[in-house]
Amino acid sequence: MDAKGPRAWIDEEKVRYLIRWMVGKASDVGLLFRPHFKTHQSGPIGEWFREAGVEAVTVSSLRMAEYFLEWGWTDQTIAFPMDPRAVAAMSALAERANVRFTASEGTPLEAIDRKLTAPAGVMVELESGDRRSGFDPARTDLLDRAVETLDRCEKLHFEGFLTHSGHSYRARGDDGIQEVHERAMASVLPVKERYRSHRPLLSIGDTPTASRMEGFDGADELRPGNFVFFDLMQAEIGSCRVDDIAYCLECPIVAKHADRSELVVYGGAVHLSLDRLYMEDGTPFFGLPAPWEGKGWGTPYEGAWVKRLSQEHGVIRASPELFREKEVGETLAVLPVHSCLSADATAGFWTLDGDWVGKMG
Amino acid sequence: MDAKGPRAWIDEEKVRYLIRWMVGKASDVGLLFRPHFKTHQSGPIGEWFREAGVEAVTVSSLRMAEYFLEWGWTDQTIAFPMDPRAVAAMSALAERANVRFTASEGTPLEAIDRKLTAPAGVMVELESGDRRSGFDPARTDLLDRAVETLDRCEKLHFEGFLTHSGHSYRARGDDGIQEVHERAMASVLPVKERYRSHRPLLSIGDTPTASRMEGFDGADELRPGNFVFFDLMQAEIGSCRVDDIAYCLECPIVAKHADRSELVVYGGAVHLSLDRLYMEDGTPFFGLPAPWEGKGWGTPYEGAWVKRLSQEHGVIRASPELFREKEVGETLAVLPVHSCLSADATAGFWTLDGDWVGKMG
Repeated sequence: MDAKGPRAWIDEEKVRYLIRWMVGKASDVGLLFRPHFKTHQSGPIGEWFREAGVEAVTVSSLRMAEYFLEWGWTDQTIAFPMDPRAVAAMSALAERANVRFTASEGTPLEAIDRKLTAPAGVMVELESGDRRSGFDPARTDLLDRAVETLDRCEKLHFEGFLTHSGHSYRARGDDGIQEVHERAMASVLPVKERYRSHRPLLSIGDTPTASRMEGFDGADELRPGNFVFFDLMQAEIGSCRVDDIAYCLECPIVAKHADRSELVVYGGAVHLSLDRLYMEDGTPFFGLPAPWEGKGWGTPYEGAWVKRLSQEHGVIRASPELFREKEVGETLAVLPVHSCLSADATAGFWTLDGDWVGKMG
Repeated sequence: MDAKGPRAWIDEEKVRYLIRWMVGKASDVGLLFRPHFKTHQSGPIGEWFREAGVEAVTVSSLRMAEYFLEWGWTDQTIAFPMDPRAVAAMSALAERANVRFTASEGTPLEAIDRKLTAPAGVMVELESGDRRSGFDPARTDLLDRAVETLDRCEKLHFEGFLTHSGHSYRARGDDGIQEVHERAMASVLPVKERYRSHRPLLSIGDTPTASRMEGFDGADELRPGNFVFFDLMQAEIGSCRVDDIAYCLECPIVAKHADRSELVVYGGAVHLSLDRLYMEDGTPFFGLPAPWEGKGWGTPYEGAWVKRLSQEHGVIRASPELFREKEVGETLAVLPVHSCLSADATAGFWTLDGDWVGKMG
């Protein structure tokens, strides 16, 4: 047993339940389920999706696509704008798999098409309120030009539109998520309609919307990723309950400071990320400590939070009871604010049964 | 050439200059230089320190100590509180190298001593204002007990005191750094004096203090780490100039959004970390874009900043000139807010001469 640092644990039973739940949800609302694998980045967890009937996936990089192709995933959407400097790697993928690349505002489609050596689909990204990447749905001039360019391409072929309502992460509760979702759908559906002669797919997907909404008329595909582990951010948004979170970091307690009722753990910014939530009074926190029970973790302690992170230190503000109860040499579970970023930093996961689940390096 | 993601570059000439500069500084002020290797985590960069005359190092984990032991560093301080669960790994190290472990409030010294199989030094950590870990220097009752316990230990032997004035990161300018430094020294020097019969070492070390201060009377050892690359945080504190920064992330531009004058780059929270600085009006930023000139990077662009990071996307607010000048398929240098966290996430570095410099995985 490696006692040298924080350990990432997943609750396989919960993860498998969440996978089946989202497979069922997509089926109920009549959408193709194309889960985003960037949260877990794990071949073995991918197999759990396959066992639940999943056949198509989303990834966020060419490297991740190559990794999952090795695991037999031949139908992949790379939901990150194409980089024309990477055409050789795109070609290598397109020659071996059914891949779709993503075009955003500024993507030099013709230049990429000229160099690509195999056919590949293109999803045109729409910006549905998140203001990160994608075409403004109102800029039909730019969209017309992109679709017309794709019509003339020899290797690239237009498959449809893709959007990520990442601004749902700033929503709270079903009403907030619904407002984001309705506005997003209202902004992208006219685009699908405008190009109906191309029979475009509409792919949507963020965990809050996929978890909580029911009405997806006009969409064809659902691409959530984070739901496979969930996290405190999702609990705060209302996508899940804290008890649904399926990932934690087990952190060794390495110091106790009685005068300020603080425990220091081995578990810092490089393990949890500096993603944060805020308490009602505006105080930021970076995770919540919970009992580590050997075979799993419990409900977060009352009145305790990860107050501060430096590179490898986490400072936990503890209630007097928690402070008294814990000693250096014991461990705590820390539920992350953002499981995607924490999981990205790990080499893999332990299941509560003690199995090692590897991931992309 | 791997064109599939952001690339970490270092300016070897600057790095070697910074190493020689800090070696000279430590020598001028009469301190042993024991640089912290957690910023670069690189065996080859360690060799550049060795060529500059460095013989002793600081690391932040047992794994890092093992890695640098393989590179021939036999005199190491692990400046992170001991974890009694890791005694086997501590013993393995202590059997092969001259190591010093760190004791903080709550470290079970006797239990560790009983299990340890080889002699090892102990630095007792003092909290000199940063309120992260370490004994409160005023708690002489706790310090007496720790030193007395160490006196009775068979394997562990008391070597001295170690403190990290991490709160200097909240200082701005020489006056601010000096205030932090003077208060820190004033709080820890009486502790050294109290245990003078043990002839304790006093080890200090944060980059702002090491870079800018001159008076270190009573200290024996200097342990800065970040100075090897510097970053925007250090430039803001006043430890360096922006031109001294020796690390950048070269990020592919993957989208352009004319309506909001924003460039999207491949370079996100998993590459830069969510560490942030704030502009005068309170707007946070996560890095500064600079020209990528093939053989190096230039001065950051006026009126441009990394506005937002998600897992793999960076959104750069660009001036109209910068926006017009850049196209998808080109790259930008991004100077990080915190080079330690960005470098931690990389597999290694490219030098401007095109050499690959590996690091700990």
